Amino acid sequence: MLSKNEHKLITSLQQKKYRIQHQLFVAEGVKVVNEFLNSNLQLHKLFCTEDYSHSISKYEPEIITDKELLKLSKLSTPNKVIAIFKIPLANAIKTEGLTVALDAVNDPGNLGTIIRLCDWFGVSQLICSTDTVDCYNSKVVQATMGSLTRLSIVYTDLNTFLNNANSPIYGAVMDGKMVYDTELDKNGILVMGNESQGISTEIEHLLSQKITIPKFSKNNTPESLNVATATAILLNEFRR
Amino acid sequence: MLSKNEHKLITSLQQKKYRIQHQLFVAEGVKVVNEFLNSNLQLHKLFCTEDYSHSISKYEPEIITDKELLKLSKLSTPNKVIAIFKIPLANAIKTEGLTVALDAVNDPGNLGTIIRLCDWFGVSQLICSTDTVDCYNSKVVQATMGSLTRLSIVYTDLNTFLNNANSPIYGAVMDGKMVYDTELDKNGILVMGNESQGISTEIEHLLSQKITIPKFSKNNTPESLNVATATAILLNEFRR
Repeated sequence: MLSKNEHKLITSLQQKKYRIQHQLFVAEGVKVVNEFLNSNLQLHKLFCTEDYSHSISKYEPEIITDKELLKLSKLSTPNKVIAIFKIPLANAIKTEGLTVALDAVNDPGNLGTIIRLCDWFGVSQLICSTDTVDCYNSKVVQATMGSLTRLSIVYTDLNTFLNNANSPIYGAVMDGKMVYDTELDKNGILVMGNESQGISTEIEHLLSQKITIPKFSKNNTPESLNVATATAILLNEFRR
Repeated sequence: MLSKNEHKLITSLQQKKYRIQHQLFVAEGVKVVNEFLNSNLQLHKLFCTEDYSHSISKYEPEIITDKELLKLSKLSTPNKVIAIFKIPLANAIKTEGLTVALDAVNDPGNLGTIIRLCDWFGVSQLICSTDTVDCYNSKVVQATMGSLTRLSIVYTDLNTFLNNANSPIYGAVMDGKMVYDTELDKNGILVMGNESQGISTEIEHLLSQKITIPKFSKNNTPESLNVATATAILLNEFRR
């Protein structure tokens, strides 16, 4: 049985300001919650239906009905469990290894894909401008699953971060040097820009090297690659 | 003013069986419809609000009210225009150039991304198994925009197509040869599999070369790359 306050808390955590205030976020569904329970995340509270509760030994879940789950869930097909986790403390910024930096990426689906890609390609850390979509947004959480816990994600002023960086800074733009002909430093920083605006002028001034994925279409279309797709191709270029 | 039959037709075209029956599909919104009007697609009928109608000279639109638009639209923010286009006749299958073949790709978002990638990388044609999601599905149409009209897309029995092919057939699998070490033929066929099952056993037997994008994460996670992301990386490998 869910209390009114618990219901209110879970619903409020859909909004960034309450996630920041409480330093908590919500994850849903058997697969995602299981991955998080097996990570270094700290559980705050676990709500689940009777049948799921039998599969848990380490934690004391609160049993809820299917009807309560349906009311709380943001999934199109609610799946047995909703958990509240503590937002981990931000890691210190590393100076070694490959870093991805996002300049105002807005779409939760894109951020989710980029986080999974960083995990796949062994990226050391993801630096997000403060106006990049929150990685504890429920859509990002559900899309990234375990990758969210394995990657160091830091929200900070991107301008300051890049100004203090000692590594080469690469930025994906439309008119840069062809990436195939560019020497890519394994300790470099790769900056990816906003979905419609690209990298902001302020940040563009800080790039050591502008890079571009060439277009092979016969006509001069399409206009651009999606930011997550471009990140996939560029991370592969750094690693190959 | 929209007739009852027109309303019924537009709504019915959300379903594949009616798109096949009528050989028509729906596109929405100023940007998408404009791209299609400027392509080689044949317009069947154009419905738009009064203000958009002034920007059209070549066609005779039917004026609808904002309320009618709202009722018909599948967009979260309906945008002035809904058009019905004829599904173009399927092109003959080409034997030259790079081909992408999809084995039961289910998700409209993934198909949309793959179509845009094929357009970017100058892929000659996209061959889809008959159980791949329909490219005239409204989500695919809205996501691909002009790319849908620039690419030759053929739905056919994948087994028969691959059995008759004379080009090398590459397939993305988890345990193939590292793609960086593989000679990739510019007239080859790249097979990408279903989101959860990968390439089916039947199709796997027809591959000339299994290829894999290596994982650089420290632990053995994440399980796999999303099919659209993997297609991006592999098409880049074919072209670089």
